[in-house]
Amino acid sequence: MAEKDKTNALKARLPRGLVDRHAGAIKAADRMLATIRGVYELYGFEPVETPLIEYTDSLGKFLPDQDRPNEGVFSFQDDDEQWLSLRYDLTAPLARYVAENYDQLPKPYRSYRNGWVFRNEKPGPGRFRQFMQFDADTVGAASPAADAEMCMMMADTIEALGISRGDYVIRVNNRKVLDGVMEAIGLSGAEHAGTRLTVLRAIDKLDKFGPEGVQLLLGAGRKDESGDFTKGAGLDDAGVATVMKYVAAQSSVGNEATVESIRQNIEMGPSGVEGLNELDQIAVITTAAGYADRIKIDPSVVRGLEYYTGPVFEAELLFETVNEKGEPARFGSVGGGGRYDGLVGRFRNEAVPATGFSIGVSRLMAALTALGKISAEAEVGPVVVTIFDRDRVGEYQKMVKDLRDAGIRAELYLGGSGPKAQLKYADKRNSPCVVIQGGDEKAKGVIQVKDLVLGKQMSTEITDNAVWREARPAQVEVPEADLVAAVREILARQAG
Amino acid sequence: MAEKDKTNALKARLPRGLVDRHAGAIKAADRMLATIRGVYELYGFEPVETPLIEYTDSLGKFLPDQDRPNEGVFSFQDDDEQWLSLRYDLTAPLARYVAENYDQLPKPYRSYRNGWVFRNEKPGPGRFRQFMQFDADTVGAASPAADAEMCMMMADTIEALGISRGDYVIRVNNRKVLDGVMEAIGLSGAEHAGTRLTVLRAIDKLDKFGPEGVQLLLGAGRKDESGDFTKGAGLDDAGVATVMKYVAAQSSVGNEATVESIRQNIEMGPSGVEGLNELDQIAVITTAAGYADRIKIDPSVVRGLEYYTGPVFEAELLFETVNEKGEPARFGSVGGGGRYDGLVGRFRNEAVPATGFSIGVSRLMAALTALGKISAEAEVGPVVVTIFDRDRVGEYQKMVKDLRDAGIRAELYLGGSGPKAQLKYADKRNSPCVVIQGGDEKAKGVIQVKDLVLGKQMSTEITDNAVWREARPAQVEVPEADLVAAVREILARQAG
Repeated sequence: MAEKDKTNALKARLPRGLVDRHAGAIKAADRMLATIRGVYELYGFEPVETPLIEYTDSLGKFLPDQDRPNEGVFSFQDDDEQWLSLRYDLTAPLARYVAENYDQLPKPYRSYRNGWVFRNEKPGPGRFRQFMQFDADTVGAASPAADAEMCMMMADTIEALGISRGDYVIRVNNRKVLDGVMEAIGLSGAEHAGTRLTVLRAIDKLDKFGPEGVQLLLGAGRKDESGDFTKGAGLDDAGVATVMKYVAAQSSVGNEATVESIRQNIEMGPSGVEGLNELDQIAVITTAAGYADRIKIDPSVVRGLEYYTGPVFEAELLFETVNEKGEPARFGSVGGGGRYDGLVGRFRNEAVPATGFSIGVSRLMAALTALGKISAEAEVGPVVVTIFDRDRVGEYQKMVKDLRDAGIRAELYLGGSGPKAQLKYADKRNSPCVVIQGGDEKAKGVIQVKDLVLGKQMSTEITDNAVWREARPAQVEVPEADLVAAVREILARQAG
Repeated sequence: MAEKDKTNALKARLPRGLVDRHAGAIKAADRMLATIRGVYELYGFEPVETPLIEYTDSLGKFLPDQDRPNEGVFSFQDDDEQWLSLRYDLTAPLARYVAENYDQLPKPYRSYRNGWVFRNEKPGPGRFRQFMQFDADTVGAASPAADAEMCMMMADTIEALGISRGDYVIRVNNRKVLDGVMEAIGLSGAEHAGTRLTVLRAIDKLDKFGPEGVQLLLGAGRKDESGDFTKGAGLDDAGVATVMKYVAAQSSVGNEATVESIRQNIEMGPSGVEGLNELDQIAVITTAAGYADRIKIDPSVVRGLEYYTGPVFEAELLFETVNEKGEPARFGSVGGGGRYDGLVGRFRNEAVPATGFSIGVSRLMAALTALGKISAEAEVGPVVVTIFDRDRVGEYQKMVKDLRDAGIRAELYLGGSGPKAQLKYADKRNSPCVVIQGGDEKAKGVIQVKDLVLGKQMSTEITDNAVWREARPAQVEVPEADLVAAVREILARQAG
């Protein structure tokens, strides 16, 4: 194992798929998270947080088997041999939390949380093994009004972050309707579970491969440009036609027209009718609340997670950006969710209805950065008090303290270098000004304050070195007692 | 493996040493963290964060061996067989970060971060396997001025959190002085490393066992009340006397007197003199900046971590509280740190000086709660709009939206229960008032708003049921258009 060695030091590196966060990104994210939190609070949601480690069986779904304990999740055994995992989302831990505290919680129970989740997967561009999600969930409400509320809250959140109406849409569908369509073409029952999943995954590829590609994936299969063949769901032509007709059934007139058109034109089993009635209620509620223009029922929405049992939704940004290949493309999804009536029920002998929404924080940050709504650029740094006489560190420290006591961000230069390097350091720190007191100034009881912003500006204007040295632009000499006032004046000038 | 079963559901439970966080605690912590962050920013520190997972060898110290990969840390193997660990503190990852980005960083580099850390240890009361730390570090500054700054920043932080001067002290010592004392009694060299560690651990027990206990631990050993024997460092009487004299060498006159008294009275090797000079500089700087009354040089401070190489410090709260046994006791340490010049150097072929401070967030929260400075009690909940006619959910939703658009925290009751249960729900949510519109009110175009706070108060005053029903205290009927105004009035009354 690598260990320290004078001639062969340990290499400082991060495991792949993990990244450090810098000041600009942390502050931009904090501001964004505060805005999201504000909207959720307004909706009556309250924070609750779970730890990052859970029993593997509590998280479900991605259970490690004996041979491959790290399938999809990071897992490890506790002292008592029980398997623990790092959470892979915030929904499974919430289900455990609600089940564990069921009797104490108000029902319905609205809560939100943001936090890190982990995936033990192959990382790629924009794809990390640790990333942040921001979730909101309502547990204990079977009514589609709870799903409608999720969609409206997402819309309000996106607008609160500065994205304009028209630049986004909340797309809504219902897994029950999808089930109903599949029932109609003979895919009901446990024996067809695998085929149903293949059908859902085929529909989910609409954005990527277009209707022709989906059609192939619903039928025999699809060969991509590289020659790789993906086996299809194996539906017959009539089955493919039914599914494709459903996927394209969105009406341009509006949500209630979409529901009506599906009801009239698409053959479906009993689950479908129930699902359609739920979509109808969501349409009525969101229309009454004034969201008809941004919450759209769209039969092509599927969502990847297996545990959804009813309405599913997706927040999509519509403005154009440039994709990895340099082609113009819609920004796409920044979050989604749906109803998961089975998850809390795993822990109880009764069904517990639940619905929720999850925002991909870094994806949303990328979108807001692309729109110029947030910036991860360095802020103005602290005032730097330089050190000329090493035996007077206490006095320089006192200057720093006086500035801080006045609420001014300030620091003492703590390195071992000389005057020139100290100015360079202040530059690198993006300091507004530096404070200088050499022996001569000390004798006169004065301090020099140098405005770095004005200095940079003037250095481009004054090209004659002699003039520059003579004029000492952007530098003022003030009595010791006036230090705070002089710095304040410079900060005010820069701000204005 | 447990899985879902109608009659034998999976048990919802957390692994030991892990806890959920509720709304009150989350909000109290957030406020506290914001205050700490404010002080650190004022000192010119900037945030930087590392991921929760690192290569095990990067973290060092607690390296898992082949037999027990989980010694102290949570560890697991990556796909490529390399060992990964959850971080056990924030210092080791920072050392990796600085080493990896050395050339890009300003030097000295001041940074701060808060985050979860993990210990794979036996949990106990107040001792968790996941807990939060808040660290600040300065890398690249060899000067004791950097250590002095850490101590002053801690003092400012504690005061910013509302703890009064006199109720806390920042205690400072220097590992080099401790080394010097040990050199003087013949404990230099690698062959005595184990004994030196035992001596440090003995001194660290001063609070717990008193001078008599420490004396025993420095000598042959100590038997506790239960009869368990702890083997001592095995020093001879002269050695024990030298160490005890040093430990008690704090002067009541002040820091410079303490340094002078040690210099005059304690026999020590060359490391000790170097360490004393550093303590002297810290004393001069903190006195000049006005901190002499709260930053105290105290030879009994040791700190547990092995990697400290120079000054060590500890923030101690002095006010009395009650310990686990119900006895009055000082609150004790809420954080500490020191100089660790070797940690970054593990990754480079040059020494990199560094010093830092870590706050135990939950310990500090407990202190502030005991002092009544923060409260984790439930805040006022949202206004609840109740549902009487299920077919008018859209209309009720619209009322909620109107309240939210006016900036009022509001929610629609989303459960399936009747009027009485809805009022109970609002109570449990700590709602300020509920909004009610049954069929009669709808016909008249009015809405009822019920003040729950006033209602509770009056129900204790009016004991006659008939009078209560007749008067309907704390309930107003307003035209539909006046809903927002009526709710605003109630909120204002409650706030005032």
